[in-house]
Amino acid sequence: MGLVGGGPGSFIGPVHAMAARLDGRIQLVAGAFSRDAARSREAAIGYGVAPERGYPSLDAMLAAEAQREDGIEFITIATPNAHHAVAAKAAIAAGVAVMSDKPMTATLDEAREIVAMLKHNPVPFGLTYTYSGYPLVREMRARIASGAIGTLRKVVVEYNQGWLAGDANGKQAEWRVDPRTAGLGGCIADIGVHAFQLAEFVTGTRVAQINADLGAVVPGRVLDDDCQMFLRFAGGARGLLMASQVMTGEGNDLAIRVYGDKGGMRWNQENPNQLTVLKAEGGMEIVRAGDPSLGTAAQASSRLPGGHPEGLLEALANLYTDFAGHLRGAPDTLVPSADEGLRGMALIATAVAASRDNAGWVDLAV
Amino acid sequence: MGLVGGGPGSFIGPVHAMAARLDGRIQLVAGAFSRDAARSREAAIGYGVAPERGYPSLDAMLAAEAQREDGIEFITIATPNAHHAVAAKAAIAAGVAVMSDKPMTATLDEAREIVAMLKHNPVPFGLTYTYSGYPLVREMRARIASGAIGTLRKVVVEYNQGWLAGDANGKQAEWRVDPRTAGLGGCIADIGVHAFQLAEFVTGTRVAQINADLGAVVPGRVLDDDCQMFLRFAGGARGLLMASQVMTGEGNDLAIRVYGDKGGMRWNQENPNQLTVLKAEGGMEIVRAGDPSLGTAAQASSRLPGGHPEGLLEALANLYTDFAGHLRGAPDTLVPSADEGLRGMALIATAVAASRDNAGWVDLAV
Amino acid sequence: MGLVGGGPGSFIGPVHAMAARLDGRIQLVAGAFSRDAARSREAAIGYGVAPERGYPSLDAMLAAEAQREDGIEFITIATPNAHHAVAAKAAIAAGVAVMSDKPMTATLDEAREIVAMLKHNPVPFGLTYTYSGYPLVREMRARIASGAIGTLRKVVVEYNQGWLAGDANGKQAEWRVDPRTAGLGGCIADIGVHAFQLAEFVTGTRVAQINADLGAVVPGRVLDDDCQMFLRFAGGARGLLMASQVMTGEGNDLAIRVYGDKGGMRWNQENPNQLTVLKAEGGMEIVRAGDPSLGTAAQASSRLPGGHPEGLLEALANLYTDFAGHLRGAPDTLVPSADEGLRGMALIATAVAASRDNAGWVDLAV
Amino acid sequence: MGLVGGGPGSFIGPVHAMAARLDGRIQLVAGAFSRDAARSREAAIGYGVAPERGYPSLDAMLAAEAQREDGIEFITIATPNAHHAVAAKAAIAAGVAVMSDKPMTATLDEAREIVAMLKHNPVPFGLTYTYSGYPLVREMRARIASGAIGTLRKVVVEYNQGWLAGDANGKQAEWRVDPRTAGLGGCIADIGVHAFQLAEFVTGTRVAQINADLGAVVPGRVLDDDCQMFLRFAGGARGLLMASQVMTGEGNDLAIRVYGDKGGMRWNQENPNQLTVLKAEGGMEIVRAGDPSLGTAAQASSRLPGGHPEGLLEALANLYTDFAGHLRGAPDTLVPSADEGLRGMALIATAVAASRDNAGWVDLAV
Repeated sequence: MGLVGGGPGSFIGPVHAMAARLDGRIQLVAGAFSRDAARSREAAIGYGVAPERGYPSLDAMLAAEAQREDGIEFITIATPNAHHAVAAKAAIAAGVAVMSDKPMTATLDEAREIVAMLKHNPVPFGLTYTYSGYPLVREMRARIASGAIGTLRKVVVEYNQGWLAGDANGKQAEWRVDPRTAGLGGCIADIGVHAFQLAEFVTGTRVAQINADLGAVVPGRVLDDDCQMFLRFAGGARGLLMASQVMTGEGNDLAIRVYGDKGGMRWNQENPNQLTVLKAEGGMEIVRAGDPSLGTAAQASSRLPGGHPEGLLEALANLYTDFAGHLRGAPDTLVPSADEGLRGMALIATAVAASRDNAGWVDLAV
Repeated sequence: MGLVGGGPGSFIGPVHAMAARLDGRIQLVAGAFSRDAARSREAAIGYGVAPERGYPSLDAMLAAEAQREDGIEFITIATPNAHHAVAAKAAIAAGVAVMSDKPMTATLDEAREIVAMLKHNPVPFGLTYTYSGYPLVREMRARIASGAIGTLRKVVVEYNQGWLAGDANGKQAEWRVDPRTAGLGGCIADIGVHAFQLAEFVTGTRVAQINADLGAVVPGRVLDDDCQMFLRFAGGARGLLMASQVMTGEGNDLAIRVYGDKGGMRWNQENPNQLTVLKAEGGMEIVRAGDPSLGTAAQASSRLPGGHPEGLLEALANLYTDFAGHLRGAPDTLVPSADEGLRGMALIATAVAASRDNAGWVDLAV
Repeated sequence: MGLVGGGPGSFIGPVHAMAARLDGRIQLVAGAFSRDAARSREAAIGYGVAPERGYPSLDAMLAAEAQREDGIEFITIATPNAHHAVAAKAAIAAGVAVMSDKPMTATLDEAREIVAMLKHNPVPFGLTYTYSGYPLVREMRARIASGAIGTLRKVVVEYNQGWLAGDANGKQAEWRVDPRTAGLGGCIADIGVHAFQLAEFVTGTRVAQINADLGAVVPGRVLDDDCQMFLRFAGGARGLLMASQVMTGEGNDLAIRVYGDKGGMRWNQENPNQLTVLKAEGGMEIVRAGDPSLGTAAQASSRLPGGHPEGLLEALANLYTDFAGHLRGAPDTLVPSADEGLRGMALIATAVAASRDNAGWVDLAV
Repeated sequence: MGLVGGGPGSFIGPVHAMAARLDGRIQLVAGAFSRDAARSREAAIGYGVAPERGYPSLDAMLAAEAQREDGIEFITIATPNAHHAVAAKAAIAAGVAVMSDKPMTATLDEAREIVAMLKHNPVPFGLTYTYSGYPLVREMRARIASGAIGTLRKVVVEYNQGWLAGDANGKQAEWRVDPRTAGLGGCIADIGVHAFQLAEFVTGTRVAQINADLGAVVPGRVLDDDCQMFLRFAGGARGLLMASQVMTGEGNDLAIRVYGDKGGMRWNQENPNQLTVLKAEGGMEIVRAGDPSLGTAAQASSRLPGGHPEGLLEALANLYTDFAGHLRGAPDTLVPSADEGLRGMALIATAVAASRDNAGWVDLAV
């Protein structure tokens, strides 16, 4: 694996490195950590990478690694959103597989280009929609697919944070509120797409229409920092999506509730090792990660027995380990695809435009 | 107190009787429990009321009780919504005080008539928006009023039930899904107004505009059974209101979250004796009902020290006890007023029309 | 009902009054609220009792009420422990039924006398072990009796409070730490017996032996304020009992966990409307008070459907309503009996002596 | 790092490998995974280790690795308890650092020998008392050390599992219930020592005396499977320790509550990212892992900001990363020491003997 981004001050770079490494199937051996050659070499050392494999650009990395017998097999893109597309396209052009941070790109057109490019240059391509790597999220998906809640009726997905309720200080905050680095969406692009992908992933059903209300709550903010959206799913189920970065005091409160005519389920990322199953006749069951009663996908995504907590790094590691299997020829994979990335970009573009124009219900077409 | 409604099969009648009785300030001494004279007398006995004070109509009760030295001082209206207005108006005309179940009436016009009538015939009038009687709801209101969360930014209020996810069988279900008895709203009128009143009560701020999406999820249903709504508060805060009776497996999950620029709070009716206070700098405080650190209103609304749970009957009893105090001349009261009832009816009428017409944002005027 | 105790400053007096009144089957009509005649009359007014039925002594009350057609049918004893026995014996001697606060008496001998007396003067006698009135406690008992957890193996019962962690100021604290008013036990008598009764009630099994370690943690305290105890149940199950009033910051954290070879259950008084059922094969079920799936005893002990919280007053009201039924001839009752009171006194006496003498395992004989 | 044990069917071997690898400071490069040479080589491949560095014995590994420039710097012992001592002594004799699973040894004498040996052959020695690696456990320790709860009064530590409630089938279960592989204690040695170490670690205070009651609940079991123990800490605080592997349905419920005269704290391993701080004046604070308000030790033990869950692997990784730092000369370390291992063995030996002899209170001397 070669990392793109993740230089000094990066939050997500080390997270990718740890998660990729956890299961022992992937080694971080190179990186274009920074545009500054010296800093990239220094960052390499910090990651345990040979300094000469700390490159000043992705192009340099792709060129040099292609010459090595032990060269990288895929890149991970961990830059601000504005740089995702160019990096992905360069790797695809070079025939190198890609894992990319979400959202896939900064604009919908870029996402379309990547999908089109992949048709002609098929390389494995994955998106780190981390939360779909949690065992119990996969359990939810499997149970719903098998009819556990009957006909889908209602989905409530929310992603509540508070860390941008004040001034956006620091590297992490600054690029996210700046259209030049974040792209056309703020909160919707940073976390709203997570909620959206989770809803489609868990239900196995696409959102057909949205009615979006995005707001910029903190004075002076240009991009949205608080989003609310009605959803209509293909098949008619109703839904609600909330995402906010100004719910003062909230941490990383991503939660989903799904209801059908036969039952319901609830899951919350801050307490990820339990899934609540609601029964139509009353009462509820708490399902615990790691328990032998879980389905195949959830079992394969757990390293520890019930009662031994796993967390976000393990969820992300599940995506990496699935991706590594895919690179070695495993046919099927739960790693979020470029198509899911494209849908995320369609959501951002559609919601931003529809909310600005007060357009009411609009189709979510890709 | 004389009860209107609450005959055989009633859920809410006995609830009113227990709550009114709890603090020993109110005695249920008469009732128009049923239109059938024999059944009304029989019901009277069940309530511990002298059989001759079980009347076949409100008019009969008002006439007979006016002749007694120990006659009723107020009526409680606990009928299906369609009968609220006529009962309230009869009592007001007779100069008898009124406690009424919510929603105040079946139509907005009826609500306007009552408010107008009260101007000319001022009698104490209260609405049993029960949840505003919980000590920690009152604590939230007091803290927000005193600036604890700073400028109001975001409100999320939800009321999730699942009991109408299947066929609507039984007396309780049947009248609620029938426009002839329920009025113009289904879920919005039955529980949506609770959520709405709670949001305005807790924040001390009025909702200025709504964008409503009401749906009838269960096949064949005429009235809405699932509601979602964007809110704009006077002053600019954003909000979201969800109410559903088809979230299969949910009980009585009324919850509110409120955020300002300085902090946030969360409260949930199913666990009513704790209030979560979120701090801008991270971490949260759990405030417990009954603790001596609480404000005046919360203290006065608790009967037991911290750790000794109180529930819904006690919350409703708080409204009754406040109302009894008001009847005896106490000047100030937290009992929901006819104006709050009128706002609830405006919400129902506006939401039903706007959702039907796909009208987007509309003013919520009363 | 005539109340003994409950005068100015009493916490438990008004609690008994509210709970007794809740279901409308009992009226508080007299009381020996205080030894001071004027204060007793004044207290009567506060309780809504005719002032002339506020007596200066129990004897006066028994004598006067016996002359009335509408005289009291039972007394409730709500005094400090030291006065329980004399009141109970006076009532029994007069043929008046008794509801008594726990512990039954101040000494084991007094408890034996009452049990002996009741053999010759059988009157209905109940103890307000309030927590056994909770619907889900009764559900636990019924499920265990029906074999839901298989052979009983382990019981952990705990009652954690913190309110006596500092100096014992105020009427409530003072009498509890003073042997002259509290009797021979402090924490063990005030709350340890609740935990003990709960364990025996829920399991339907008696504790055969104990190994007790009582301590007085706060400097200068004479009676125990922190208790821990190993238990051996008849039949061989192992157990642990904790009770403390010096766990700083704890409220009223009474909790019980019971395990057999086929499953387990957990219940906690601070969150009384849910029961956790643990399955041998992993996972757990949350059972909700008020749900129609519950057994007869739990159903009969709930006033509201699932999701509408009931609390401690309702639990105590269940004991009163059962007792009222018993007075009217209902054969079977879940109201704690004088035998259970005697066992509680045996626990106190045995634990205090065994801990003082460092006696290790001792029989708990009554 | 060279692993001792961890061959086919091992649960803990892969756990050590993942945790050691997570932070990128340690590489697993060799192992004596199995006594069968072919299986050890095969296991090596499974761990990503060169097959020739999969040795058939620790001695072979120590001899061969000593010849390599890139030879191992420490071993991790992950065998059943009976083999801990011989492995540790061989490594110490060879001057190789040791990380060992707990309990340190199978007998108290072995533990004494290791401590004595380390005096003459000082090599870094650590024990994987994993739970002391959790950030909020370290936060508790730091807060208590700084006086946050005042004088220590009461400790309740418990470790509840249910997985041995049935027959002990499978490799993991079988060795734990067999004295030949487990040593002299069953549950007390497997998890009781974790609870004990946690209590001493968090409070910074030693247990001076114990009163132990160990039982073998499942018919036919030789070693204890359910333990309860009163504790007296140096300085006089009272305590309770529970550990059980027969609490049917429980997962890995390790929890600690600590109280002083000024406050209290609660932490639970199944929900490890929050710490509850109880205030003497009522109310409680929830402290969240990853928040910037935490102390140095907790901050250094978190990889992710608040709301992004970390779990058991991360806790264990903290021990490994600390140990790696220590190997590179970092002076101070929170890695549990051989002295803590010795105390654990003293606990096991003392508790087993005292419980068997019904000895009551006994000193816990090392």
